[in-house]
Amino acid sequence: MVISGSCAACRHRRKRCKPNCVFKAYFPADNPQKFADIHKVLGARKVGEFIESLQASHYSQSQCQEAIESLSYESSCRINDPVFGIVSLLCALEADLHKFKNQLDIVNKEIEALQATDAVLPTNQVAAPEA
Amino acid sequence: MVISGSCAACRHRRKRCKPNCVFKAYFPADNPQKFADIHKVLGARKVGEFIESLQASHYSQSQCQEAIESLSYESSCRINDPVFGIVSLLCALEADLHKFKNQLDIVNKEIEALQATDAVLPTNQVAAPEA
Repeated sequence: MVISGSCAACRHRRKRCKPNCVFKAYFPADNPQKFADIHKVLGARKVGEFIESLQASHYSQSQCQEAIESLSYESSCRINDPVFGIVSLLCALEADLHKFKNQLDIVNKEIEALQATDAVLPTNQVAAPEA
Repeated sequence: MVISGSCAACRHRRKRCKPNCVFKAYFPADNPQKFADIHKVLGARKVGEFIESLQASHYSQSQCQEAIESLSYESSCRINDPVFGIVSLLCALEADLHKFKNQLDIVNKEIEALQATDAVLPTNQVAAPEA
């Protein structure tokens, strides 16, 4: 029987959501997709164990919340891209970074060249023989 | 009983590695840490189901290999950083990218200023009355 106040994890698994439910604080009923994704990739048992291991290691409530958010994000990325998952975003960012580094090198050299021209030309104009 | 030709997954779980073992192609015996990490985060059942789902969806052997590599990498990141996992790398790359974009904006403006100076000064020098 599913109680109306059940969390998304208990609703998804059609379980009774007990007052000490390990999922309750992290999977509110109004966001069923968040649990559905993490459940598909890791399974409820591993998610529950993970939350308990964080609590046992004295991570704060907000750290546990962050951990579940990042794990949910990883899970949704894996569902969208089964081969590369979130790693595809990492690769795309690395490629962008490489592109920007190259662009920065190019424009820095351009500045150096412009500054060198500014520094050299007047001197040449002055020093060069007029003939 | 563990057979000497067992894959890392079967060795880790102390199971008999059968010829049709789903893990054999992805977890060679010489890299036990790779399976240990993914097993800790996802569990053997989910990893096996994941490989089977990729095969059922006709992903190639090399795509399955890539998928296990990226999933193993995610798992090792999660073990090293239980709160943010691989997402911490994503955030660091985004911060670097933001920094590079800003630097690029600055040097592009510097170039524009230098080019404007180069374009304006000679004209002024020519056009300005000599008195």
